[in-house]
Amino acid sequence: CYSDAKRWICYNEYGTSGVGGRAAGVNGNGPTKLVDPLEDPVPGVGTYEDFNTIDWVREKSKDRDRHREITSKSRQSTVALLHSVSDAFSGWLLMLLVGLMSGALAGGIDISAHWLTDMKEGVCLNGFWFNHEHCCWTSNETTFQERDRCPQWKSWAELITGATEGPFAYIVNYLMYIVWALLFSFLAVTLVRAFAPYACGSGIPEIKTILSGFIIRGYLGKWTLIIKTITLVLAVSSGLSLGKEGPLVHVACCCANILCHLFTKYRKNEAKRREVLSAAAAVGVSVAFGAPIGGVLFSLEEVSYYFPLKTLWRSFFAALVAAFTLRSINPFGNSRLVLFYVEFHAPWHLLELAPFILLGIFGGLWGALFIRANIAWCRRRKSTRLGHYPIIEVLVVAGFTALLSYPNSYTRMSGAELISELFNDCSLLDSSQLCGYQQVSCVGNTLADRPAGPGLYTALWQLALALVFKMMITVVTFGMKVPSGLFIPSMAVGAIAGRLLGVGMEQLAYYNHDWIIFKGWCSPGADCITPGLYAMVGAAACLGGVTRMTVSLVVIMFELTGGLEYIVPLMAATMTSKWVADAFGREGIYEAHIRLNGYPFLEPKEEFEHNSLAVDVMRPRRADPALAVLTQEGMTVGEVESLVESTHYSGFPVVVSQESQRLVGFVLRRDLLISIDNARQRQEGVVSASQVVFTEHAPSQAPDAPPPLRLRGILDLSPFTVTDHTPMDITVDIFRKLGLRQCLVTHNGRLLGIITKKDILKHMAQIANRDPDSILFN
Amino acid sequence: CYSDAKRWICYNEYGTSGVGGRAAGVNGNGPTKLVDPLEDPVPGVGTYEDFNTIDWVREKSKDRDRHREITSKSRQSTVALLHSVSDAFSGWLLMLLVGLMSGALAGGIDISAHWLTDMKEGVCLNGFWFNHEHCCWTSNETTFQERDRCPQWKSWAELITGATEGPFAYIVNYLMYIVWALLFSFLAVTLVRAFAPYACGSGIPEIKTILSGFIIRGYLGKWTLIIKTITLVLAVSSGLSLGKEGPLVHVACCCANILCHLFTKYRKNEAKRREVLSAAAAVGVSVAFGAPIGGVLFSLEEVSYYFPLKTLWRSFFAALVAAFTLRSINPFGNSRLVLFYVEFHAPWHLLELAPFILLGIFGGLWGALFIRANIAWCRRRKSTRLGHYPIIEVLVVAGFTALLSYPNSYTRMSGAELISELFNDCSLLDSSQLCGYQQVSCVGNTLADRPAGPGLYTALWQLALALVFKMMITVVTFGMKVPSGLFIPSMAVGAIAGRLLGVGMEQLAYYNHDWIIFKGWCSPGADCITPGLYAMVGAAACLGGVTRMTVSLVVIMFELTGGLEYIVPLMAATMTSKWVADAFGREGIYEAHIRLNGYPFLEPKEEFEHNSLAVDVMRPRRADPALAVLTQEGMTVGEVESLVESTHYSGFPVVVSQESQRLVGFVLRRDLLISIDNARQRQEGVVSASQVVFTEHAPSQAPDAPPPLRLRGILDLSPFTVTDHTPMDITVDIFRKLGLRQCLVTHNGRLLGIITKKDILKHMAQIANRDPDSILFN
Repeated sequence: CYSDAKRWICYNEYGTSGVGGRAAGVNGNGPTKLVDPLEDPVPGVGTYEDFNTIDWVREKSKDRDRHREITSKSRQSTVALLHSVSDAFSGWLLMLLVGLMSGALAGGIDISAHWLTDMKEGVCLNGFWFNHEHCCWTSNETTFQERDRCPQWKSWAELITGATEGPFAYIVNYLMYIVWALLFSFLAVTLVRAFAPYACGSGIPEIKTILSGFIIRGYLGKWTLIIKTITLVLAVSSGLSLGKEGPLVHVACCCANILCHLFTKYRKNEAKRREVLSAAAAVGVSVAFGAPIGGVLFSLEEVSYYFPLKTLWRSFFAALVAAFTLRSINPFGNSRLVLFYVEFHAPWHLLELAPFILLGIFGGLWGALFIRANIAWCRRRKSTRLGHYPIIEVLVVAGFTALLSYPNSYTRMSGAELISELFNDCSLLDSSQLCGYQQVSCVGNTLADRPAGPGLYTALWQLALALVFKMMITVVTFGMKVPSGLFIPSMAVGAIAGRLLGVGMEQLAYYNHDWIIFKGWCSPGADCITPGLYAMVGAAACLGGVTRMTVSLVVIMFELTGGLEYIVPLMAATMTSKWVADAFGREGIYEAHIRLNGYPFLEPKEEFEHNSLAVDVMRPRRADPALAVLTQEGMTVGEVESLVESTHYSGFPVVVSQESQRLVGFVLRRDLLISIDNARQRQEGVVSASQVVFTEHAPSQAPDAPPPLRLRGILDLSPFTVTDHTPMDITVDIFRKLGLRQCLVTHNGRLLGIITKKDILKHMAQIANRDPDSILFN
Repeated sequence: CYSDAKRWICYNEYGTSGVGGRAAGVNGNGPTKLVDPLEDPVPGVGTYEDFNTIDWVREKSKDRDRHREITSKSRQSTVALLHSVSDAFSGWLLMLLVGLMSGALAGGIDISAHWLTDMKEGVCLNGFWFNHEHCCWTSNETTFQERDRCPQWKSWAELITGATEGPFAYIVNYLMYIVWALLFSFLAVTLVRAFAPYACGSGIPEIKTILSGFIIRGYLGKWTLIIKTITLVLAVSSGLSLGKEGPLVHVACCCANILCHLFTKYRKNEAKRREVLSAAAAVGVSVAFGAPIGGVLFSLEEVSYYFPLKTLWRSFFAALVAAFTLRSINPFGNSRLVLFYVEFHAPWHLLELAPFILLGIFGGLWGALFIRANIAWCRRRKSTRLGHYPIIEVLVVAGFTALLSYPNSYTRMSGAELISELFNDCSLLDSSQLCGYQQVSCVGNTLADRPAGPGLYTALWQLALALVFKMMITVVTFGMKVPSGLFIPSMAVGAIAGRLLGVGMEQLAYYNHDWIIFKGWCSPGADCITPGLYAMVGAAACLGGVTRMTVSLVVIMFELTGGLEYIVPLMAATMTSKWVADAFGREGIYEAHIRLNGYPFLEPKEEFEHNSLAVDVMRPRRADPALAVLTQEGMTVGEVESLVESTHYSGFPVVVSQESQRLVGFVLRRDLLISIDNARQRQEGVVSASQVVFTEHAPSQAPDAPPPLRLRGILDLSPFTVTDHTPMDITVDIFRKLGLRQCLVTHNGRLLGIITKKDILKHMAQIANRDPDSILFN
C-alpha cells in the first residue's frame, strides 16, 4: 500500500475510499493501476496562461513535493546526495549571481548616464568616451577651485564656432543641448516601441503585481532587460525629469528572472521564482542608493507580497553583494557606496521639529496632488488620441524640458547632482552659489550662521523657479513610454522646498536671535541651523508623500547620512507626510498605477472595512443561472466539453451528484481541456460518449460502452472552502495570506457558489464607488 | 432588515435561512426577536482560559467589528468623531508611552547595576550611592592615566582593615566579593520565588509563545515587571555569567502589557495586544544595544508571529523613542546610544575571510554544543531532586562563579565591560593589558602592527582561562530561577575566542610578513590586522550559533560600529555559524526551551517536510469512538451537558443531523458552558428537558414543552474546514498563517473529524521521533 516516492494511505473507513495527490504534475499513482492518461503528466497541465493569477498554495506544495523527493533520494546514492546539497545551495548561488549582475549593470548605467549627460554640453578632446570630470582628471592645468575647467574639455560652441563666451556661444550651446536631448529621447522611445514595450515606466507597479502572483510573460525577459538598460541611460541623459532608481528595481528583477532559468528549482516554480524576485527588488534599491538594509526593508514594506524569513536573509545577502560590486566598479569616483554622501556638523534642536513637520505637510500635500494629477493625465492619455502618438509626446516633453531647463543652472544639472548640492552643508571654502553668504569677521565657530549674500539670493530665486518647473513637468513625464523613475524627481522637489525653508529659517534666526524661540540655542556665532538637513527632510517628506513608504524610506535616508541622530526629524516628516497624504487618498502612486492598469492586486496593507458576507460576493448571484459544476461520475466527455465551451469560467467544482451538491474537488478549465485533448489524441477509444470519471474506481459500465476517461489526476482534492456566513474581511484575509485564486462557498455542507480574486476586487471597487469593470484580469 | 451596528442580509434563497455573526460578543440580533439570552453578551463568552491558545481570526474579526462601529458612529456626532480620532491615534500614543517607560526603566537598570557591581569591590566615601567612576569624577586628584583611582573610593579591605595592598587586603577584598555575590544572588532568587515566579529566565521563549497566541496570565503583569526589574539588577551585579539584554525584552513587554490596560482597544483584544507586544520586543533590544533598526528586525525575525506592516512602522517609532529616552538618561556617561561603541581604523582584507569563517565554525559548534548541554542540564533539573532546591542551586553557582572569577581580571569585570574591552582597537596611548605590545621605533603609521609584549601574553593566558570558565559556567547558569540573559555571555565567549585568534593572526603576520598570503597587504609598518574586529566577528558568530539570529544580528552589530564595511565579515561569520549549528539541530536556544516547557508553538520558520495528509492527523483516529458532535436541533440541555461533561474537548462541531453529518458551525466548550449556566440562572423555564436550538428559527414544539434555549449567538458559523485529502504541509501553513486553534476535516461534504494545533504539534513530534506527550497545552 505504499508507492515509492509518495506514501499513500489506505483509507477505507469513511464512505468512498479516497486517495490522491493535491494537483497534477505532483501526483503519483494510486494503488490500483487502471488506464490513466495522467500517469505521466501531460505537458501543459499545471502551468498558467498569460495575464492570469497563480495559485500560491499549489506552487508551494509542488516545491515541497520536489524537495521531499530530492531529500528521500539523497539517502540512496552519493550523486543524489550531491544533487540534494547543490539544490539546497542553489538559492544562495543564485543570489550571488543576481547581486553581481545587478551591481555590474548599475555601475554600467551610472557611468554611461554620466557620460551621455555631459555629452549634451560638450566633448573631451582626449577621447569622446570621457565624461567631463574624467576628462579633466588627466589635465595638469586644473586647480582645485576650477576643477571642472580644463582645455581638453570643449563645449559645443567652442568646438563648432571657436567662441567660448558671449551670447552667440550661449545660443549654440543651448541649441546643441536641445538637439541632444531630443535625440536621446527619440532613441529611447523608439527603442522601447520597437523592441520591448514593457521597458517603459518605472516597472514597480507591475513588479508589485507580479510578486503578488500575477503572470505577465516577457515583462522580466531578456529583451526588456537589454532595452530597459539602454533606454534608461538615454532617458536619464536626455534631461527629462525622471530618475533611474525605480527602473533599477526593474532591471534587477529582470536579471533575477533570467538567472532563474539556470536552476530548475526556480525555473519551474512560480512561487519560488517570486521569492528570488523579492530579493531582486531589494538589490535594485541597494544599488540605487547604496543602502542594502534600506533596500531589504523597501522590498519587505513596499513591493513584496510573500516574504518569508528565508527571503529576508537572502535578500540581505544579495543586496550586500550588489552594493559591494557597485563600489568596486566605483562609478562616482569617490569609492563611496552611497549616492549622496552627507555629513552634517551641527545637531538639531527640538524646536526645529516645527519646520520639519511643516515640510512633512508640504510633502504630503504634494504627494496627494501629484498622484491625482498624474493619474488624471495618464487616464487622459489612455482615453484620448494623445495615447496614439507616444513618440511625439516624448519629443515634445523632452524639447520643452530642455528649452526651459537650460537657462537655470539648478534644472540644467541632473536630478542627482541637484539633490547632492542641496543636501550639502556649506563649509567656509565652498564656492557654490548656494553657499554665497556674506563673509563676516569670524570669531569662534567658523561654521556659524551667516547673513545671506547676493549669490545666495540669486540661488534662492533660481531654486524657486526650479521648484515650480519640476513640480509641473514631473506630472506629465511619469508614465510616458520611456523608462522613468519617480524617486529622484520627488526628492528633488522636496529638497528644493526644504532648502528654501532651511535658508529662510537660518536668516530668520540670524537676524532675530533675540526672539524667545531662538534664545538659548541660536545665539550669534552659533551654527544652529543646517539648511542641508532641511533639504534632506524635505526630500524624504515628498518621496514619502508620493510612494507612502515609511520605515524603508527612513532607513534609506539613515544609510545616506550614517547618523542615528537625524532619524527623528526624518521620521517626524515622513510620518506627517504619510498622514496628510493618506487623508486625501490611501493609495500611493504605485497602487494608483496598478489600479489604472486594471491588474488584479489585493493590497496587503489595507484592511477590508465593509461588513459584507461571503454570500454577497460569491457567484452565482441571485438572478444568475446555477453554478456550473461537474459530477464525479456520470457525465460524458461530450457533456463536459459542451459545459466548458458554454462558459468562460477558469475552473469547475466537482460534486458527488447534482442533487446532493456535496463537494469532491475542483478542476481547472485549462487542465481539463488539455487532458481531454490529450486523451482524444493518444488514448484509444476515448470518444464523446466516453464517461468522464473523477472517482478512484471506475464505475461498472455496460460491456459495449467506450472506455472511461479517468481524470482524478487533475482533480484538486483539497479545494479551499468557506461557509456562506463567513464575513468578507476574513475571506479577504484568507485570500491574501494563502494567495488563493478562488475559494468555494458552502452552506451546511452543500456547495453554494464560488468566489474568485477578481470577484473580491470587483466587490471592493463597488464599495469604493469605483467601476467594478476596471478590474480587467483574473 | 437592517439592524443598526451590523448589516444583516436577508438571505432566504438557499435551504435554511441563515443569519448570524461570526462569534459571540460581537453578535447582534437577528431580525426576528425571540427569547435569546445572548442579546446582551454574557460575561465571559469570548474570553480564554489560562494556558490556552487564542483564535486569531476571531480576535481580529472582533477588532474589525469594533472599528466599523466607531467609524459608522463617527458620522453622527462630534463627540463620536473625536472618539474615532483618538481611537485611531491611541496606538501611537501607546507606543510613545511604551518607549518612554522602557527607556526610563532600562536607564534605571543600567545605573543600578553599575552601582551594585562596583559595590562588590568597594564604596564611595562621598556617598554610598556613587559608583566607582562617578565617585572619582568629582575628585581633583585623578589623572587621565589613573582615572579610576581616587582617594574617595575605598576598597573593602581599605575600609575594614586600612590595608590597601598586600595579600591580606587581597583576601579581604576576595571574601567581600564573594559575600556580596552571595547576598545579591540570594536576594534575587528569594524575591523571584516569593513574589513572581515568572520573573526568572530570559523570558524570550515565553514571549515568543505568547506572541504566537498563547495565554499565560500574569507573565507580563505588574508584579513580574517590578520583581524582574529589581532581581535583574541583583543578578547582574552578583557577577553570575548572565546578561541583562534578554530580560530587557521581557521588561519592555511587561511595560507594554500594563500600558495596554489604559486603552480599551488593546485591553480587550488579544490580537491587538500582541501587536503592541511585538513592538515592545523591538523596544527591548533597542534599549539593550542602542540599536533601533536592529531591534525592529529582531522582533520581526526572532520573536514575532503576526507582524503586519503597521506594526513594523510603530515598532520603529517606539524603538526610537526608547533609544532616545535612554540616551537622555545617559547611563554610560558618554552620551552615546550604543553599549559598545567601536571605531576601527583599518579596513579588512579579503583573505581575512578565512579566519572569519573559522570563527563562524567555532560559533556554530559552540552554539550547538551549548544548546545540547544547557537543555540536558535543564531537563535534569526538571526531572531530578535538583529542581527542588533552586535557592541552594543559585547560591552554589553564584559562590562558585565569584570564587573562580575574582582572581582573573577578565572574569571579574562585568560581561559588557569585557566585551567592550575586547572590541577595542588598541591605540598607542592605550594602557590596558590587552594593548601590551612592545614599543617599536615608529616610522610612518603609528597604529601599525607591533610584536606582542609580556603584558599581552599575560592577557592572552587570562583570556584563555576566562574562555573555558565562561563556556562551562554559562551552561549551568542559564535556566536558573533568576532573570538571566544569554546575549552577553554568548558574545563574551565569542569575543574572547575572536580576540585570541585576532592577536594570533596579528603576530603571525608581523613575524611572517614575507609569506605569500600576507604579501602585498601586510607589509611591515602596516596596520593590517585589527584584533578588535575579530572579537566582534567572534561575538556575532557565537550569538548567532546560540540564537540562530541572522539579519537582525548583523544589523545590531552594524549599528554598534556604524560602518557598512564591516557587514561582510559579520555576515560571513553569522552565515557559517548558522549553517554549522543547523547541521547539529535546527532549533535555537529559545525554541529548545519552548519545547522543553511543552508550550504549543508552531515554528513559523520551518517547513513541514513530511507528506502526511489531514486524515492522518485528525481525531478521531480509526480506533477511537466517533467524533462528539451536537445537532443543530433536537438535543436537550441535559443531553448537551452530559456530552460536554463526558469529554474534554474544547469545542464541538454542530451538524444538521447525526445521519447527514453536514457541518453547520462550531461552538466552544467554554462559551457553551457559560451560556447554559447563565440561562439556567436567569432565563425562566430553562430546564434539562429544554431543547437546545442552534437554528435561526425555533422549531415547532409541543405546547407544554419548556421554552427552548437558543444558542445561535455563540455558534461560529464560519468554522475553517479542509478536506481529508489536504496534505499536512498545506494544513500547517493554514494554521500558521491564519492563527487557527482548530480546523474541521470533511470528506465529500460530510464532517469527518477535527485537527487542533496540539494534534499538529504532536504529529510533528512523532515524526521527529520525540515524545508526542511533551506537548502539554492546547
